[in-house]
Amino acid sequence: MQIIHPISGMQRTADALRASGRRIGFVPTMGYLHEGHASLIRHARKQSNEVIVSIFVNPAQFGPGEDYQAYPRDLDRDLRLIRETGGDIVFIPSAEEMYPPGFATSVHVEGLTEGLCGASRPGHFRGVTTVVAKLLTAVKPHLAVFGQKDAQQALVIRRMVRDLNLDAEVLIAPTVREPDGLAMSSRNIYLSPEERIEAGGLYQALRLARKMVQAGEREAPKIIQKMRDLLSERPSARIDYISIVDTQGLKPMDRLTGEVLVAVAVRFGRARLIDNVILNL
Amino acid sequence: MQIIHPISGMQRTADALRASGRRIGFVPTMGYLHEGHASLIRHARKQSNEVIVSIFVNPAQFGPGEDYQAYPRDLDRDLRLIRETGGDIVFIPSAEEMYPPGFATSVHVEGLTEGLCGASRPGHFRGVTTVVAKLLTAVKPHLAVFGQKDAQQALVIRRMVRDLNLDAEVLIAPTVREPDGLAMSSRNIYLSPEERIEAGGLYQALRLARKMVQAGEREAPKIIQKMRDLLSERPSARIDYISIVDTQGLKPMDRLTGEVLVAVAVRFGRARLIDNVILNL
Repeated sequence: MQIIHPISGMQRTADALRASGRRIGFVPTMGYLHEGHASLIRHARKQSNEVIVSIFVNPAQFGPGEDYQAYPRDLDRDLRLIRETGGDIVFIPSAEEMYPPGFATSVHVEGLTEGLCGASRPGHFRGVTTVVAKLLTAVKPHLAVFGQKDAQQALVIRRMVRDLNLDAEVLIAPTVREPDGLAMSSRNIYLSPEERIEAGGLYQALRLARKMVQAGEREAPKIIQKMRDLLSERPSARIDYISIVDTQGLKPMDRLTGEVLVAVAVRFGRARLIDNVILNL
Repeated sequence: MQIIHPISGMQRTADALRASGRRIGFVPTMGYLHEGHASLIRHARKQSNEVIVSIFVNPAQFGPGEDYQAYPRDLDRDLRLIRETGGDIVFIPSAEEMYPPGFATSVHVEGLTEGLCGASRPGHFRGVTTVVAKLLTAVKPHLAVFGQKDAQQALVIRRMVRDLNLDAEVLIAPTVREPDGLAMSSRNIYLSPEERIEAGGLYQALRLARKMVQAGEREAPKIIQKMRDLLSERPSARIDYISIVDTQGLKPMDRLTGEVLVAVAVRFGRARLIDNVILNL
């Protein structure tokens, strides 16, 4: 397994791979990998000849007071997991090269980024789209794989890739969950044992929403209220948002119709966790 | 000479050229080509194996009330000039494909885009950087050539290409001038015979600035005043700006030092013309 640090080194390697007809699959990560990332790598593996995984904790997508410094890091473990899961190349750019002195450029997607996580994390998605654009121009993949857990991010990136004709197929892979339903996340490490138990409520709330819809409920406020009730029974839960939106424009819906995204963001102690389900009506 | 319309067709051609080891030189244009563009094509020709010229009148870089509809177009003449000058491929995307329904992404360079032309054309540079990013991801050139006449644009694009690691060398080629010094521009076609004569004042003002600096003058306001006086003698001239800025940050200078950009934008009738010189002190 090859490790590449400089952006230009990554680009020359990508050029050589493309020139020799290899299909490049790419999984961008912030490291501290878990079974969710492993699943993304396996998806990339299935659909490409060469799997490149990037590790970069992107300062630009953390707001002031967020957990950039505290974000968990464990490079040795990450490299082991990537090797065991079938990664061929690990791209680890430095923050100094990603954001050189005088860095002044940003990529922005309007309309999809103002609601949900964008409302409580101003500037977050601008940081995400800018860094993903840079990672795609560095790695030049044919296929880039993102996780459904970050549903809004996935939609925003899909739009950016299309709008800037970045010439990569975007694959959104299903969320991988712990036995109790908690979505895998590097931030789960922040949870105390008690919070960890209560964090299972996130997915329980989503399952409740699905059940209500299956039983015929179509009024978003009623579903949201029941989800809120369920989460309120967990003393450590502080709800950031519970939203039901259409999957195209991420606009809140009152009456459910078509394909809808039920998305939640809840703090348990230091951890701000997100999760979602898509329902087809 | 090959003509390509679809973005994906351009990308597949670019991939094939890169895979076979050809160096791609790229000249993005808005068409209605003149000797200035021919010079850019010749620069690309010298430094690459395959010269691609794009023609796209980009609606996103025109403001309301600007000359998007009126902008001159003559495809047959353009194709002839490109063929005669040594272009190999002409990329002519449609506005519908460049800006599909739901288009929501923009690329922005902060700091270099607020002054000079950015002040009188709000949104202009965001339109330029977004379309140039798209043209670069479509054409995948090794080298992209821009004209020094659009000095601010050249600096903004150079910064964007570096910041987004777009993997193209950016070459800024010297301005090509008419015998009286007027910089070649597609917009010169707007000038009446009288305005055409007076438009020569643009370069005369820049030469005056150079002469004053050579004679030891270092006070920007004094130089600007003399340039203003010269242009005021042309009855059809309406000055948009006369600025002396540093070439790194494009910040106005009071006392000249280092490398400075003397830039002017003046309206003559319907034509808004720009020009500049760089002076080394």
